[in-house]
Amino acid sequence: MDVLVPYDAREPKTRLGPFLTPTERRSVARSMLADVLDALSRVGVEPTVLATEDIAADVPVRVDERPLTPAVNAAIAERDGPVAVVMADLALATPAALDRLLTAEGDVVLAPGLGGGTNALLARHPDFRVDYHGVSYQDHREAARAVGAAVTTIDSFRLAVDVDDPPDLAEVLVHGDGETAAHLRSLGVEIAPEGGRVAVSRSAE
Amino acid sequence: MDVLVPYDAREPKTRLGPFLTPTERRSVARSMLADVLDALSRVGVEPTVLATEDIAADVPVRVDERPLTPAVNAAIAERDGPVAVVMADLALATPAALDRLLTAEGDVVLAPGLGGGTNALLARHPDFRVDYHGVSYQDHREAARAVGAAVTTIDSFRLAVDVDDPPDLAEVLVHGDGETAAHLRSLGVEIAPEGGRVAVSRSAE
Repeated sequence: MDVLVPYDAREPKTRLGPFLTPTERRSVARSMLADVLDALSRVGVEPTVLATEDIAADVPVRVDERPLTPAVNAAIAERDGPVAVVMADLALATPAALDRLLTAEGDVVLAPGLGGGTNALLARHPDFRVDYHGVSYQDHREAARAVGAAVTTIDSFRLAVDVDDPPDLAEVLVHGDGETAAHLRSLGVEIAPEGGRVAVSRSAE
Repeated sequence: MDVLVPYDAREPKTRLGPFLTPTERRSVARSMLADVLDALSRVGVEPTVLATEDIAADVPVRVDERPLTPAVNAAIAERDGPVAVVMADLALATPAALDRLLTAEGDVVLAPGLGGGTNALLARHPDFRVDYHGVSYQDHREAARAVGAAVTTIDSFRLAVDVDDPPDLAEVLVHGDGETAAHLRSLGVEIAPEGGRVAVSRSAE
């Protein structure tokens, strides 16, 4: 199956800015991509990284400088048959969760992300196109309905956590066992239990 | 199977304070409890609500004024056989997700919550006890190991979202179709798309 992994190689993860320097944000983004590619390889998939600029990778890289939505739709339009799109910042993605996505029934399979996003999807309907702007989970359901495609939703915490904001780093540190968690620890990022949800803190260097 | 639903009837959901009045927080907490009880009833379970004070409910209510951890452990200790504990603020819990929890193999089954919490669990080992303070997901894994209990984790977004902070209300509005979502809408709470994750806003009354 064709699997696309969109990756912003230029200025990734700006919302982690208060916590990580631009160089660190790029290296953490690269760790997350490595974890996603590793999880995909363990379900027997060789994805294509859809990157904003050329990067070194062990899998094919397609460069498209455009924003996420047109870049993904152009890649989808070129393909016959099912296409999956898995975000590059799903540092907690497991082979089991990805397998549920890739083997689910339905013309369009959606894995919601926190905050109304769509972190992973599988499109079997030739007319389905993505739109990541706004509350994309709702928009993708509507777009599927508009082309007569039956929608299935994957109920996965592992796929719901994309790493955009500092609290997401806590999720990676609590639940992750891949390169991203190790990399964050090497940067001095650690969990900081508070009254409610766990947060992160960073030791002075 | 014995299923406990701990419920704070006195001053629930204080972290929603900037967004809802104390009276509204109690009514929203009650809506969430109703949604959880409804989802449990649809998998054929009659739970016991473990409440801090007596409340009217269609299911048995056990009153225990103590904090969450000792109240749950006292109830667990009295029971023979498996006991599940499902938090009362899982407004997105579906019968399918709860069924996965209640039928999973393992001596201790954990459904992690956002921020290191444990939103639902199933204990089949007689010596397992809960501790909801701190990063309880990690602590419960450790507690299970300490008594020689094999741990299974349920990967569910629906069970991972507990409603503690205002952004969680956005999850309910995007994904919920129960009493809580309707109640929030009746209070004028609506989703407010932003640059990143969707937030909530509230219309002036």
